[in-house]
Amino acid sequence: MRIAVLGGDGFVGWPTALHLSNLGHDVHIVDNLSRRWIDTELGVQSLTPMDSIQERCRIWHQETGRRIHFHLLNLATEYERLKVWLAEERPDAVIHFAEQRAAPYSMKTDRHKVYTVNNNTNATHNLLAALVETGIDAHLVHLGTMGVYGYSSVGAPIPEGYLDVDIDTPTGKKSQQILYPTRPGSVYHMTKSLDQILFQFYAQNDGLRITDLHQGIVWGTHTDQTRRHEQLINRFDYDGDYGTVLNRFLIQAAIGYPLTVHGTGGQTRAFIHIQDSVRCIELALKDAPQAGERVRIFNQMTETHRVRDLAEMIAKLTGSDIANLPNPRKEAAENDLIVNNDQFIALGLQPITLAEGLLSEVVDVAKKYAHRIDRSRVPAVSAWTKDIAQRVEHDPEGKRLRSVS
Amino acid sequence: MRIAVLGGDGFVGWPTALHLSNLGHDVHIVDNLSRRWIDTELGVQSLTPMDSIQERCRIWHQETGRRIHFHLLNLATEYERLKVWLAEERPDAVIHFAEQRAAPYSMKTDRHKVYTVNNNTNATHNLLAALVETGIDAHLVHLGTMGVYGYSSVGAPIPEGYLDVDIDTPTGKKSQQILYPTRPGSVYHMTKSLDQILFQFYAQNDGLRITDLHQGIVWGTHTDQTRRHEQLINRFDYDGDYGTVLNRFLIQAAIGYPLTVHGTGGQTRAFIHIQDSVRCIELALKDAPQAGERVRIFNQMTETHRVRDLAEMIAKLTGSDIANLPNPRKEAAENDLIVNNDQFIALGLQPITLAEGLLSEVVDVAKKYAHRIDRSRVPAVSAWTKDIAQRVEHDPEGKRLRSVS
Ligand SMILES: NC(=O)c1ccc[n+]([C@@H]2O[C@H](COP(=O)([O-])OP(=O)(O)OC[C@H]3O[C@@H](n4cnc5c(N)ncnc54)[C@H](O)[C@@H]3O)[C@@H](O)[C@H]2O)c1
Ligand SMILES: NC(=O)c1ccc[n+]([C@@H]2O[C@H](COP(=O)([O-])OP(=O)(O)OC[C@H]3O[C@@H](n4cnc5c(N)ncnc54)[C@H](O)[C@@H]3O)[C@@H](O)[C@H]2O)c1
Repeated sequence: MRIAVLGGDGFVGWPTALHLSNLGHDVHIVDNLSRRWIDTELGVQSLTPMDSIQERCRIWHQETGRRIHFHLLNLATEYERLKVWLAEERPDAVIHFAEQRAAPYSMKTDRHKVYTVNNNTNATHNLLAALVETGIDAHLVHLGTMGVYGYSSVGAPIPEGYLDVDIDTPTGKKSQQILYPTRPGSVYHMTKSLDQILFQFYAQNDGLRITDLHQGIVWGTHTDQTRRHEQLINRFDYDGDYGTVLNRFLIQAAIGYPLTVHGTGGQTRAFIHIQDSVRCIELALKDAPQAGERVRIFNQMTETHRVRDLAEMIAKLTGSDIANLPNPRKEAAENDLIVNNDQFIALGLQPITLAEGLLSEVVDVAKKYAHRIDRSRVPAVSAWTKDIAQRVEHDPEGKRLRSVS
Repeated sequence: MRIAVLGGDGFVGWPTALHLSNLGHDVHIVDNLSRRWIDTELGVQSLTPMDSIQERCRIWHQETGRRIHFHLLNLATEYERLKVWLAEERPDAVIHFAEQRAAPYSMKTDRHKVYTVNNNTNATHNLLAALVETGIDAHLVHLGTMGVYGYSSVGAPIPEGYLDVDIDTPTGKKSQQILYPTRPGSVYHMTKSLDQILFQFYAQNDGLRITDLHQGIVWGTHTDQTRRHEQLINRFDYDGDYGTVLNRFLIQAAIGYPLTVHGTGGQTRAFIHIQDSVRCIELALKDAPQAGERVRIFNQMTETHRVRDLAEMIAKLTGSDIANLPNPRKEAAENDLIVNNDQFIALGLQPITLAEGLLSEVVDVAKKYAHRIDRSRVPAVSAWTKDIAQRVEHDPEGKRLRSVS
């Protein structure tokens, strides 16, 4: 298959491109490299030293004889170029990772909110409009997030995308299937909720074939393919904006920084290892919907954990301290989370779980590159509201941590 | 009150500005005049001769001694200027009409789809972000549409915004209130569905006070204030993109053009007269939600009618013919529609209905300006998909109509 990987220079996109190329697909990366610019803006860098995308593609060819093509293009602002590119390359499948994906970054200032909505909504919508206009019948696989549902719900198991509801009509109750209602908790998550409405419309009006993968938090850094060469190494974010909870704990453990738990750490979240993430995408690609079918929605996660339990587990494993800091986010202090992932299990996914030694691999990678860490970038400082920003700033434990780091 | 009317140069915005100014409010119009540019793009014009917004404001001052201020600003692209303007003017209420509002225009070509999503989503989101950032506690009143729900539903009465659903949890069924599920039928309607998610988030995260008015199709042209002077006249769209169904029938009747019914005309729609529309906005302004309250959603309509019944009524009134043309839209051929508008009735709205002689006022206005009509602009030609475009183009009745017009 000819596969376009949009956002293929990113943390999940790059190992996906390698994985699919390794399976023999003809892989084309499209990316505007905005994440590298955001690194520059924030003054942070991937813990792992990352080469340019062009260099990474060269090394891949040198190691495997296979080619991955790279095309510099901004999906959100270059609609006409996108259309021309699609019409020329005519991919059989398009995997869409190309969005601003950090909730804290999306809440940093009003400028970051405006950027995130503009970038993500236009990127997704431009892609949909261009697929219709060029008449390319590609299977579109999008990366969404489980976070669209919010985490302060009634504790119901999160189904795979849809909910049957009974609606009162003059002739009695009628059952109707609706998109599972969303209640996103950040501007970033909100854009994924907007994406769902875009997908629903284009599947219905134009028969586009769309799979939306509602992914949990990805952890780990290596896959079988990134391990093949030092210069194929994956991006590994540790900073307060782009670093995500489990990976951040592992990095904090590696550098002797206290594990920073927000509030009581009562938040329950869904997780998936990066190797499983790329396998899930392979599985989803094989199982394309028909034209006219509703959007297929999968929960792409393998396990759920409460944040404080994760912290305790890693503290035990590594001897780290735990620091309870005020939560910069506006969210429920405690929540349960039960998630169905029956569809991927049915397709043959064999989940990698936390117990399997991969935790220490991550700590090892982090130790190896520990000299590249700027400790002042470790705390999460983007606050959801101005009131919360005040509280976070004046917290004594946070002050102490910032002064030692 | 100091009231900002965003999109105040438009069909509903202008009479709203006059109505509120007449009540003694300090009214500030913000508009980028994009609708005037779209008229130019399409080669159409308002049936009524419309002066510049500056001239209209001057006449209003001359007639009443009251001032309406005008500020040229693009909400979607000039975020920083918007913020400065808000911080300086500090309105008590903001009424947001400033979106691309024609479904056929939004479906015309891919460029029009891209423009509509970009313009509407960024306009609304920029406004929300700027209100939070400037800390202005204004009541935001937005004009949405009943069309977000789609019209092919199970025939349930459309409630005012919310639905109670029972969700299965490990400890039994729990009731939860959700936004009434949407299934928009055009790119334009889709943007209003996106707006709802933006409002939900900003009400929840930042305590913004928001009222979303889900309006039916507005008909008529005059209000008490636009009648006061020839140069205060309201915009009156008749073309296939911006003209809406009831007003189009009345104009067609006035110029001896057959009433163009799409398909069987089995579509049932909700309607409201322009005079009631401005009254509803006045009522909604008086009833502002508290910070922390969920978004208030009102259905702003007074009656529902099946399109073919409307056509028959007007044909009887005026002696016009009816032409059944293939439907350029992708929608259910027949649908029922029951709408609750209890909230506005409770606030004291006394609906103007079709029977009250206002129909002939509209025909009179249309006759007066009939010489300004370009008959070739009357048919609706924007098709929802390429297949439908083919069918519309080759329809014999449509061909005949286009050749006589
Ligand atoms: N990492 C996670 O834990 C996680 C969890 C759930 C969902 N996801 C989703 O998976 C996707 C990929 O996540 P990631 O961690 O690889 O993020 P990332 O930031 O590492 O990669 C995103 C890539 O998209 C590119 N991009 C952004 N906007 C673009 C535009 N307008 N045009 C072209 N390219 C653009 C960036 O340059 C970057 O290379 C995202 O959509 C994200 O929301 C990630
Ligand atoms: N007319 C109807 O029948 C009807 C029915 C339901 C809902 N509505 C809603 O009511 C609102 C007003 O409708 P209308 O009929 O008056 O439309 P209109 O097109 O006559 O007016 C909209 C105004 O907004 C301005 N505008 C658009 N984008 C802007 C931007 N980015 N920055 C600044 N100004 C911008 C336009 O220049 C125009 O003057 C719309 O949001 C529409 O969706 C209208």
